[in-house]
Amino acid sequence: MNNLQRYDEGLPELLRFDQIAWYEDDIVRILDRRVYPMTIRYEICKTPADVADAIKNMVTQSGGPLLGVQMGMVLAAKEAEKMPIADRLKHLTEAGNLLRYARPTMSEAYGDMVDKSLLAATAAIKEGRSLVEATFNAAIEEANRRYKKIKQAAVHLVNTFPDQGTVMTQCFAETIVGMMCLEIRKQKKDIRFICPETRPYLQGARLTASVISDLGFDVYVITDNMPAAIMQRENVDVFTSAADVITSDGHVINKVGTFQIALAAHYLGIPYYVSGEPSTVHLTPDSITIEERDSEDVLHCLNTRTAKYNVRAFYPAFDITPPKLVSGIVTASGIIQPGLEQ
Amino acid sequence: MNNLQRYDEGLPELLRFDQIAWYEDDIVRILDRRVYPMTIRYEICKTPADVADAIKNMVTQSGGPLLGVQMGMVLAAKEAEKMPIADRLKHLTEAGNLLRYARPTMSEAYGDMVDKSLLAATAAIKEGRSLVEATFNAAIEEANRRYKKIKQAAVHLVNTFPDQGTVMTQCFAETIVGMMCLEIRKQKKDIRFICPETRPYLQGARLTASVISDLGFDVYVITDNMPAAIMQRENVDVFTSAADVITSDGHVINKVGTFQIALAAHYLGIPYYVSGEPSTVHLTPDSITIEERDSEDVLHCLNTRTAKYNVRAFYPAFDITPPKLVSGIVTASGIIQPGLEQ
Repeated sequence: MNNLQRYDEGLPELLRFDQIAWYEDDIVRILDRRVYPMTIRYEICKTPADVADAIKNMVTQSGGPLLGVQMGMVLAAKEAEKMPIADRLKHLTEAGNLLRYARPTMSEAYGDMVDKSLLAATAAIKEGRSLVEATFNAAIEEANRRYKKIKQAAVHLVNTFPDQGTVMTQCFAETIVGMMCLEIRKQKKDIRFICPETRPYLQGARLTASVISDLGFDVYVITDNMPAAIMQRENVDVFTSAADVITSDGHVINKVGTFQIALAAHYLGIPYYVSGEPSTVHLTPDSITIEERDSEDVLHCLNTRTAKYNVRAFYPAFDITPPKLVSGIVTASGIIQPGLEQ
Repeated sequence: MNNLQRYDEGLPELLRFDQIAWYEDDIVRILDRRVYPMTIRYEICKTPADVADAIKNMVTQSGGPLLGVQMGMVLAAKEAEKMPIADRLKHLTEAGNLLRYARPTMSEAYGDMVDKSLLAATAAIKEGRSLVEATFNAAIEEANRRYKKIKQAAVHLVNTFPDQGTVMTQCFAETIVGMMCLEIRKQKKDIRFICPETRPYLQGARLTASVISDLGFDVYVITDNMPAAIMQRENVDVFTSAADVITSDGHVINKVGTFQIALAAHYLGIPYYVSGEPSTVHLTPDSITIEERDSEDVLHCLNTRTAKYNVRAFYPAFDITPPKLVSGIVTASGIIQPGLEQ
């Protein structure tokens, strides 16, 4: 079942399916993005609940959980195969609920993945085929479909870049970063990157900069208090990010910090392009639950406590950028104006 | 000579003269603000050059170097007393130049301190008094004068706060933070604080939050990508910072990040008050050298490298906030509108 064509070719290890989340020998192995590249370690998940916990604990984040959720469903399929046929779909549905709600802000996106695995499983049960193989293939097909769409979006995104210039990113932005670099190479543009480090998990420094650097581009890391100053000084041409959710009225929910960088870009006349598909169901900022993560993370820097013990903290994982600060939403089929899909 | 009255009473250890920089037994002892509060250590300086290096290396920063420079001049005075009378002022002037230019962006402020010590030394030489005692007393008198002015400014600053509300700070802000807390207590206002952590040195988490917490107020630390989102969510009433330099035309040069927080405050309709005295000589943003510090600091978090080895970084220590984003400059004599002193 590993003979399916895969659309992760040419991409660095961080973006390869078999590193992100991979079912093999009755386990799912997930590259721990919390410590990469300082440490290369994998989380070993034996049950769908293990996978849900790994996602909740940010072992993998950004686009990683999408494949992770579906690989978790393969573990559920393996368990279901040992059960009476009548109980199998119920078991898969229950496991799916654990995965669907692993992180509240992303329940729609994760739920889509669960539903795709359930669809494949339902067909396999009906036709008497292997549940494990059906759900595994569904995971790869969905990841391929996603990568292909992101590759198409990358063309539109890179079209907004000058022939020679500077692009600022935010947080990891995941597959679009890798596809964007491959497309820049194809279009023979000369682009250097500036990546805010993205505290508290440092995804910008550890992940985004790694992918860009692995693909041979010049990349500069800055701390999260520098975007406005550096945009101005280093003549940034474009600010770009991915999004965890884009509401149907054009609000961008993404890693906290996106809002203030978009504000600075707007003030300085620099366009902000966000990659992602607007939600197809009606969503407004009020209908989104902004995940509040453990504030202890903010009070620590790489496991060392930074403030006195009676100091507290806030940790909203995301913020909301209003449509008027967004120059365009980059989708596989082209760039659309935020708010027009209302 | 330690019998002079001191205006640091009631303030936490971080703001006490004898912790900031203190001449005693032929050495100057400087509390290492780079590792406080995780580690309490002191830099021991035996020469004026040691003090200049300590300042350059950020052992003490914000207002700390002002006292540090003058305590460095006491060391120079001690050395000068062993020389022929005719050589003493020359030696003090040379040591003063080391201290004056320890950090380029602050050469005007540090130079003022050097000049005050030189003035005291010149009088002492003329009158045959102890050079060490004269320069030490000059240091204490100047620190007293500064603290007294900051205490006056704190009254005006606290007058801008609501009776109950939330104030956001930036970077350390030093003595004004302590004096502001004492004044809030006096005015019986109910204020909680939010402090961005200020990477790469984490002064907000380690220093500002410590002073506020030591004085008994509720304080929340956030990462530097959160100010805009948290301002909106937590109903911040006032954003306030100190400044390393305020130009005569009303631009604020302060820790990098101030510009983007001021932008967010402006967008959200939250006033930004900066404490400090505008430069009395004509200065514009173009005449300020923005110090570029070692970019390795950005690529490390508490001594651990965070990015792959071929990734680079930028580290401008300061940014420039234009007058239109500043609601008022808080001085000892009242709040003035930026730009009006032009």
